[in-house]
Amino acid sequence: MATHDEPAVTEAVALPERLLLGSGPSPVPRRVLRALARPTIGHLDPAFGVLMEDMMGRLRRVMVTENRATLAISGTGSAGMETMVVNFVAPGDRVVCGVNGLFGERMADALTRQGATVERVEGEWGRAIATERLTAALDDRTAALFVVHGETSTGVCQPLDGLADACRERDALFLVDCVTSLGGQPLELDAAGVDVAFSGSQKCLNCPPGLAPFTLGERARDRLLSRREPCRSWYFDLRAILAYWREDAPGAPPRAYHHTAPINMIYALHESLGIVLDEGLPERWERHRRAHEALRAALEPLGLTRLAPPGEELSSLLAVVVPPHIDEAAARRQLLLDHGIEISGGLGPLAGRVWRIGVMGIGAAHEPQQRLLGALAEIFGVDPTDSLARLDDAWS
Amino acid sequence: MATHDEPAVTEAVALPERLLLGSGPSPVPRRVLRALARPTIGHLDPAFGVLMEDMMGRLRRVMVTENRATLAISGTGSAGMETMVVNFVAPGDRVVCGVNGLFGERMADALTRQGATVERVEGEWGRAIATERLTAALDDRTAALFVVHGETSTGVCQPLDGLADACRERDALFLVDCVTSLGGQPLELDAAGVDVAFSGSQKCLNCPPGLAPFTLGERARDRLLSRREPCRSWYFDLRAILAYWREDAPGAPPRAYHHTAPINMIYALHESLGIVLDEGLPERWERHRRAHEALRAALEPLGLTRLAPPGEELSSLLAVVVPPHIDEAAARRQLLLDHGIEISGGLGPLAGRVWRIGVMGIGAAHEPQQRLLGALAEIFGVDPTDSLARLDDAWS
Repeated sequence: MATHDEPAVTEAVALPERLLLGSGPSPVPRRVLRALARPTIGHLDPAFGVLMEDMMGRLRRVMVTENRATLAISGTGSAGMETMVVNFVAPGDRVVCGVNGLFGERMADALTRQGATVERVEGEWGRAIATERLTAALDDRTAALFVVHGETSTGVCQPLDGLADACRERDALFLVDCVTSLGGQPLELDAAGVDVAFSGSQKCLNCPPGLAPFTLGERARDRLLSRREPCRSWYFDLRAILAYWREDAPGAPPRAYHHTAPINMIYALHESLGIVLDEGLPERWERHRRAHEALRAALEPLGLTRLAPPGEELSSLLAVVVPPHIDEAAARRQLLLDHGIEISGGLGPLAGRVWRIGVMGIGAAHEPQQRLLGALAEIFGVDPTDSLARLDDAWS
Repeated sequence: MATHDEPAVTEAVALPERLLLGSGPSPVPRRVLRALARPTIGHLDPAFGVLMEDMMGRLRRVMVTENRATLAISGTGSAGMETMVVNFVAPGDRVVCGVNGLFGERMADALTRQGATVERVEGEWGRAIATERLTAALDDRTAALFVVHGETSTGVCQPLDGLADACRERDALFLVDCVTSLGGQPLELDAAGVDVAFSGSQKCLNCPPGLAPFTLGERARDRLLSRREPCRSWYFDLRAILAYWREDAPGAPPRAYHHTAPINMIYALHESLGIVLDEGLPERWERHRRAHEALRAALEPLGLTRLAPPGEELSSLLAVVVPPHIDEAAARRQLLLDHGIEISGGLGPLAGRVWRIGVMGIGAAHEPQQRLLGALAEIFGVDPTDSLARLDDAWS
């Protein structure tokens, strides 16, 4: 089997070293890359079933849920969103959708494509939406409420308190996007009463992009199994996907083939969830909070102030307003090309006005933040001393 | 950034060594695994754009097409099928669909979910469908013809000759599944007049599963751009996906973010396409043909005869009928657990009756076939001499 292991005649493409401090992908630890490169085995191999089962258990612990149906959808984070939409929302359903950033907009778009009647509860980009505005929009015809827990476009964390109870009163499902919050922001899905949630592998979990962690509880499962019409999507049909991802209970039927799982990506996600659990969830949440505060304090002397007001911030993503005298696109490009550091620009109405800086997993640490501050000070042509002192203070 | 690089407290999951000679995933060369594990960089990083562009060029050469829109869909092979359906078939469209195996059935299912009127042209599982039966089913209301070039469930290759002309006469699109044929069976998409095709990374390309190579030509692009209704799917909306995968022509607008690409998987696909091109397409097709014939000849003394008649076989997948006195599931399990060799069982009406043996990429070689034959003879309790001699003859 050693054939074709000699160097390629086709030309290699060089990849530069990058410190990933943008909105994602986040830095991937060597341990996760090594897991990714473990030899591929079959998607129906009993040995792969053992790893899948272990991955599901780890994901339940990271999501703080006992949902049996806790798995990974074979696509990037948005594939999780699409899976949620095509399985739990039927054409004609009324769905209340919180929209205070790009990812709420994206969900409203996906719901509209699915034929739902979308009741938008709009909020300012950079602010959370008041709980009572969301609950007031629910009525007895509402099939579901959707909110983005961690808005990647603004760095805002949407409080979930009180939403599940209001949904249950109306017999509506409570659907949550936790792409950027999972593993970096306090979140306990069962305690929050979430019925269905999706995330992404490439944010606080520090795994490469390509999988959407996904979970559904009993209320959602009942809704799914009682659906009469077949799911419009073949690829994201959860009934079929669950027949593959089922638990390996003794005596249970074998996993039923649906599509070939992205095997190596599942190795990597399994490993990255292990890293989260080895640190401990409360410790990890606290480290992200601390890293966010450290960076926020250190960026102020550079004239970069946080978009989100205190108490509404998302630990894992710091969106800062860029002063008008800075050419943000040019500075960001210089940061990437001269210093090898990636941060992200603004989206939608915030394009050209904000930077989005990731505080995710191994990126939520003193040393990468030092590198970022030093580089930014150099690009701005200012003395970094004050910034770095604030950072050191916050981390000491 | 060295944090969390110590061994996990969570327990590791052992993975056995496997020789993957089933219907896919196929064996992944170390070179591809090393590419997979290159450090993750950003999906909008110009350096990643260079690699994407190079990957697109390699894929064009492997698909033998000049289609500018030649890319990878962010999901496994069936995600390519879904992308084809939701972008090129509208609810109410009449679509002719060849069905002579599971993957034709799957396409008919996906088309029905999309609301199309599906005109099934059925064929025996294990036989190709006569061209004239397919062309006779086309009429002036037909929006598209779909066929599976390499039926993974039966090991049959569907001839494409004459289909494109018939489609053009009726102004129908010609849609092809080349999941199992690409890189292992002669196929020149432009010469065959194919309008849209999808494949999978984990078959003859020897890449892990997780990407669906995809291409569309000018007729398909015109159809796509003239569509009035938005695509029902957010995730698989090709107009948005093409805005990300566009060519990096000088002066062109920057790549537009749609979803975060599965970056490391694209590294791996890029590398695996390089291996295909380094060998050369005609040489690779010939090696697969030869490997198929060698294995077919060597399996006959064991009582395993090919399902497909001569001239209808798919080089990359050899489906053989298992003699009634063999407990196929038990033998296949023994092969996996005692010998570390994976082959696949039958699907649908062929379940329990056939084995499907992959002849894919580095698996299409003398040594892995020797291992398979030796193990099978041991399980069957027969002398392997005749089989191995036939194999040696065919490879000498």
